[in-house]
Amino acid sequence: MKRIKIAILGATGMIGQSYLSLLLNHPWFQVTNLTGGESAGKKYGDTGKWFMSPDIPEQFKNIIVKPTEPKDVDADLVFSALPSSVAKMVEPRFAEAGFHIISDSSAFRPYEDVPLVIPEVNPDHLGIIEVQRRKRRWDGFIAANPNCTALGLTLVLKPIHDLLRVKKVIVTTMQALSGAGYPGVPSLSIVDNVVPYIAEEEDKVQSEPCKMLGSIEEDRIKPANIRVEASCNRVQTVDGHLESVYIETKERVDIDRVKDALKSFKGKPQELKLPMAPSHPIIVREEEDRPQPRLDRLVGSVPGMSVSVGRIRQGSDANSLWLHVLSHNTIRGGSGSSILLGELMITLKII
Amino acid sequence: MKRIKIAILGATGMIGQSYLSLLLNHPWFQVTNLTGGESAGKKYGDTGKWFMSPDIPEQFKNIIVKPTEPKDVDADLVFSALPSSVAKMVEPRFAEAGFHIISDSSAFRPYEDVPLVIPEVNPDHLGIIEVQRRKRRWDGFIAANPNCTALGLTLVLKPIHDLLRVKKVIVTTMQALSGAGYPGVPSLSIVDNVVPYIAEEEDKVQSEPCKMLGSIEEDRIKPANIRVEASCNRVQTVDGHLESVYIETKERVDIDRVKDALKSFKGKPQELKLPMAPSHPIIVREEEDRPQPRLDRLVGSVPGMSVSVGRIRQGSDANSLWLHVLSHNTIRGGSGSSILLGELMITLKII
Amino acid sequence: MKRIKIAILGATGMIGQSYLSLLLNHPWFQVTNLTGGESAGKKYGDTGKWFMSPDIPEQFKNIIVKPTEPKDVDADLVFSALPSSVAKMVEPRFAEAGFHIISDSSAFRPYEDVPLVIPEVNPDHLGIIEVQRRKRRWDGFIAANPNCTALGLTLVLKPIHDLLRVKKVIVTTMQALSGAGYPGVPSLSIVDNVVPYIAEEEDKVQSEPCKMLGSIEEDRIKPANIRVEASCNRVQTVDGHLESVYIETKERVDIDRVKDALKSFKGKPQELKLPMAPSHPIIVREEEDRPQPRLDRLVGSVPGMSVSVGRIRQGSDANSLWLHVLSHNTIRGGSGSSILLGELMITLKII
Amino acid sequence: MKRIKIAILGATGMIGQSYLSLLLNHPWFQVTNLTGGESAGKKYGDTGKWFMSPDIPEQFKNIIVKPTEPKDVDADLVFSALPSSVAKMVEPRFAEAGFHIISDSSAFRPYEDVPLVIPEVNPDHLGIIEVQRRKRRWDGFIAANPNCTALGLTLVLKPIHDLLRVKKVIVTTMQALSGAGYPGVPSLSIVDNVVPYIAEEEDKVQSEPCKMLGSIEEDRIKPANIRVEASCNRVQTVDGHLESVYIETKERVDIDRVKDALKSFKGKPQELKLPMAPSHPIIVREEEDRPQPRLDRLVGSVPGMSVSVGRIRQGSDANSLWLHVLSHNTIRGGSGSSILLGELMITLKII
Repeated sequence: MKRIKIAILGATGMIGQSYLSLLLNHPWFQVTNLTGGESAGKKYGDTGKWFMSPDIPEQFKNIIVKPTEPKDVDADLVFSALPSSVAKMVEPRFAEAGFHIISDSSAFRPYEDVPLVIPEVNPDHLGIIEVQRRKRRWDGFIAANPNCTALGLTLVLKPIHDLLRVKKVIVTTMQALSGAGYPGVPSLSIVDNVVPYIAEEEDKVQSEPCKMLGSIEEDRIKPANIRVEASCNRVQTVDGHLESVYIETKERVDIDRVKDALKSFKGKPQELKLPMAPSHPIIVREEEDRPQPRLDRLVGSVPGMSVSVGRIRQGSDANSLWLHVLSHNTIRGGSGSSILLGELMITLKII
Repeated sequence: MKRIKIAILGATGMIGQSYLSLLLNHPWFQVTNLTGGESAGKKYGDTGKWFMSPDIPEQFKNIIVKPTEPKDVDADLVFSALPSSVAKMVEPRFAEAGFHIISDSSAFRPYEDVPLVIPEVNPDHLGIIEVQRRKRRWDGFIAANPNCTALGLTLVLKPIHDLLRVKKVIVTTMQALSGAGYPGVPSLSIVDNVVPYIAEEEDKVQSEPCKMLGSIEEDRIKPANIRVEASCNRVQTVDGHLESVYIETKERVDIDRVKDALKSFKGKPQELKLPMAPSHPIIVREEEDRPQPRLDRLVGSVPGMSVSVGRIRQGSDANSLWLHVLSHNTIRGGSGSSILLGELMITLKII
Repeated sequence: MKRIKIAILGATGMIGQSYLSLLLNHPWFQVTNLTGGESAGKKYGDTGKWFMSPDIPEQFKNIIVKPTEPKDVDADLVFSALPSSVAKMVEPRFAEAGFHIISDSSAFRPYEDVPLVIPEVNPDHLGIIEVQRRKRRWDGFIAANPNCTALGLTLVLKPIHDLLRVKKVIVTTMQALSGAGYPGVPSLSIVDNVVPYIAEEEDKVQSEPCKMLGSIEEDRIKPANIRVEASCNRVQTVDGHLESVYIETKERVDIDRVKDALKSFKGKPQELKLPMAPSHPIIVREEEDRPQPRLDRLVGSVPGMSVSVGRIRQGSDANSLWLHVLSHNTIRGGSGSSILLGELMITLKII
Repeated sequence: MKRIKIAILGATGMIGQSYLSLLLNHPWFQVTNLTGGESAGKKYGDTGKWFMSPDIPEQFKNIIVKPTEPKDVDADLVFSALPSSVAKMVEPRFAEAGFHIISDSSAFRPYEDVPLVIPEVNPDHLGIIEVQRRKRRWDGFIAANPNCTALGLTLVLKPIHDLLRVKKVIVTTMQALSGAGYPGVPSLSIVDNVVPYIAEEEDKVQSEPCKMLGSIEEDRIKPANIRVEASCNRVQTVDGHLESVYIETKERVDIDRVKDALKSFKGKPQELKLPMAPSHPIIVREEEDRPQPRLDRLVGSVPGMSVSVGRIRQGSDANSLWLHVLSHNTIRGGSGSSILLGELMITLKII
């Protein structure tokens, strides 16, 4: 198989580094272009602190960082790790120039003609790309990877919604420090502390699951009729967003059936045996005190790509349940899911 | 004023030490008896590790620990810091022998004839003591101090319930390590981690607020018709339980009126200017990222006795709201509230 | 007594706030001027985040921040909380204009004619001020407060040096996060981690104790003939620098005599009963596992002004010993010691 | 090659689990016997909490735990993870019964006829086993694995001692929580804190390096003439002991030559290409702020088996230097080094 050429826009930040870590030995993808702003022209190894443990891989050290300009990039698939404010301006220019973009930024997630996709949940939403191209007269396209917190939640809601029709979700998150990037949260803000607020996070957690659980109707994606209420908190963990989730459903809850639905849940990536696809997207824990971030964030056949669910228990009425969700925020909640989406699009000949 | 003689049952543990710290310079109370199990007969200063910073107060060092037996104790008021399993057996014997007991244990909280009281919320429930004495043929009585998490929540629910009639409460807690005592939570369980479970905690948080917001009907306390759903988590903070609370109400929510009701809330202890009564039981924070455990747990005119509330915001429908509650779990949620209750009972001539 | 007018240069940072917290109820001093750079012209309460728990004191909120210019300041005594790079330029202009400056910055500490003073250790070094004024033709003067880590160490070395003549000191520090200011150390750098390096710290810890334990000879301060070797590390504590210290002495070590010398050590501030003077500058702990930052950083009659020493033990030869030192880095190691120095200078009529 | 049968004594604790994690896919070794005290007779999977992330390997779950008795064990090589108090009684009985024991306990480390070995440092000390067998009339033998802190230190001292002859070492350690086992250090003891004491640790760090750097003389191991002074501290890291080390040498220090000696250091395990042997036992870091526990504890070709050294710098005289050592305390400092020693003994036909 011919190697797919990959460019990473905004490659020098923490998200960019996360892509590189995961693409290091990818069987299909080859990183050919890294772009940056102020660091354009430098060797990638000289652009700053490497955050991933322990060292920057040799093969990336000497790549010369390019400017983030369509004319400077040559790639079959572009992963954008740009901040949203930059992405808003730059990604359309790449799409117009014919690039296939999978974006980690929130800039285009809300648009009706931009697919917001978890490969296991709503691969059919990729169908909207045709509409996007037509309307925007783009040769390329933008597909969006969801918010890290919304992703873990939605992956778990999908089989429950299929089984019981979800009406309302009330979620309180306990999110990891790596979600804020580097330098991110000052240590004095979090030692012996919890910060009960994450800027702009709650809106995303409230809206994105509804879009992803929605359906394509004519020329747009119509959100599912679910109400999500979110309260987002920062706690002192390095990686792994934990969510305490209360769910109200239309159908009566049978806990054993919920567990079965979660355990047996699989999607297109599992069917197609994609390289980044974990054998089980959802792992159900039966212990009374799991999932826990440090113990469970890297479980599964592809480390960091499975979401752990535990403490699944009946609420105090028949149509409600509680559970805890844990997902690795920079792998499944970030670059890992984007890469899986890229693999899916290659396999489906969308790219 | 004559000094009230105080005994502390189970004085050598962390809760016992917390009582001693707060009673050190109390204007009305004088600690005369400390009891213990294996440590009976020793000097208090020799009974083990002192957990409070920095050192055991001189005046308690040489008190000889007594056995936890009615015949060995001489006190006007008894604070019980016994573990529930022991309290269940021992407290009735003290009550029968005529002692006035305020208990931190959960042993008698669920009983219809045992008042479970927050001095600012339901001092009228103390009226049930007469029933208790009659039914159980006790000269003394047992009054219960609520669970630390339930206390902070209920103190905040009270003015909201009065204003809007609360229907349902969905709460996720992020609780401090001191809540588990010493040695309590192993460090390897909590560094870079959250433990999404606290044994036996959720049941208390779900039931106790309803009892405290209920009313005396004939010979029993009838719980309020509120549904509380709780998910309890342990995070890496030393003191201060943080709760993320979603509330559904019968009346439409007006956020400004909710804030006013919380800010202006006062109870009998404030009216009577009791020594442990903070001038404001509830402090409302307007910043987007407060309350925070390390910054806010000791606020107020009596450190640790005021509960902080912040991030008060409308939910996604008209009859719902979100807020965060922070309370000091060992002061307001423990010995501090018991002492305040003792002061109230003295003033009301119940003792 | 007439109130001494105090100005704080660079009042909006963490050190400035630390001064304000300590001066809040000072019996002699009254804060009249606060200066800032970009924040000049604003109300102090509007200049940014308040780091001290819980809230900015009311009395400082409405003070209008002045530019850091001699003509804008009216004060009997000036505390400089300026960063060293700024202090280097600005402080001489204030001194020239007649101001009495006590500086927390490192800018002038190394100069032979600038006293670097711990009030209990080397108040006689204030005598060099006359030389400074003469040489530099200043009406005012600059006196320097030492580095926070050097301060705790030197305070403890003083009585040991008097007793045993210290030859060599090998110290490894474990320093608190507040020493780096705010935002300071990123949380991702310190959770589940130690950073074995603090920029520019080791040089200060190696040189400042020698200067402070030195003597005035003619027109200059001559350092003591002691070799200090330092390795500085950042650990995950909020406040309180812990130092593991190995000392080689000329005289044979007798551990009991060392302990006695430390316990009984007092200086001019204790003699003069200055407001910020703790009754015991050094507190000796006999437990095997003390001092500890969280338990001991606020001990003593003036919270944060006493240094705790523990684990005092013989080394493996007769002329060596080990001990641990703990000092509160922002109080004794910062503004608290500066204020005490101000009190001393007032009392000695140097101001 | 025929599989070597392995027994683990005391297999249910944290050290036992660490052995199992590392032996999971070992090319030569096959775990056949696990022993325990109270858990004898149970399935290993039912004996308690699994501490390693994330789950107990399937292949060990159903092994029936045996009593720790020679008659119940069948193995070519025995790893003892027993606590020292038990090891003292039990290991000699196994050695007498002909078992080849590599012990993690400290029970026999001090004896002149018991080899205390780091495979890269002093494999020649295994020669003393003959003396041991003869004197004690044992068919088997006991070889000891050093203390985790002493191991990292000694591995780094070896090439420096060879180059410059080490006279004196003054070390302050910052040790990880896993070193205390589970439950080990209570979280309330370590959050926002450092504990400046680890029971019985300093003696080991002071004596074991000297024994390992010593030589066999006639019938005993004679320690090297080096003075080691140690101060041991517990900090809030999960894994990875960090040591701040000051070294005085007989020869003048040339930092570049020291770095070269450390980088190029190899031993028998590297020569023999043993399965657990890292390609480089010592990794030298040039950054100003490394090694760091979270970033560096798992570096190297065999994760956790290489020791990282950084901040190598001249002391203030010509015959001294500073450096920081980081080693993974449960892998290189525990079971990993024992397994490597077992591999070495197999290859050298000692077993």
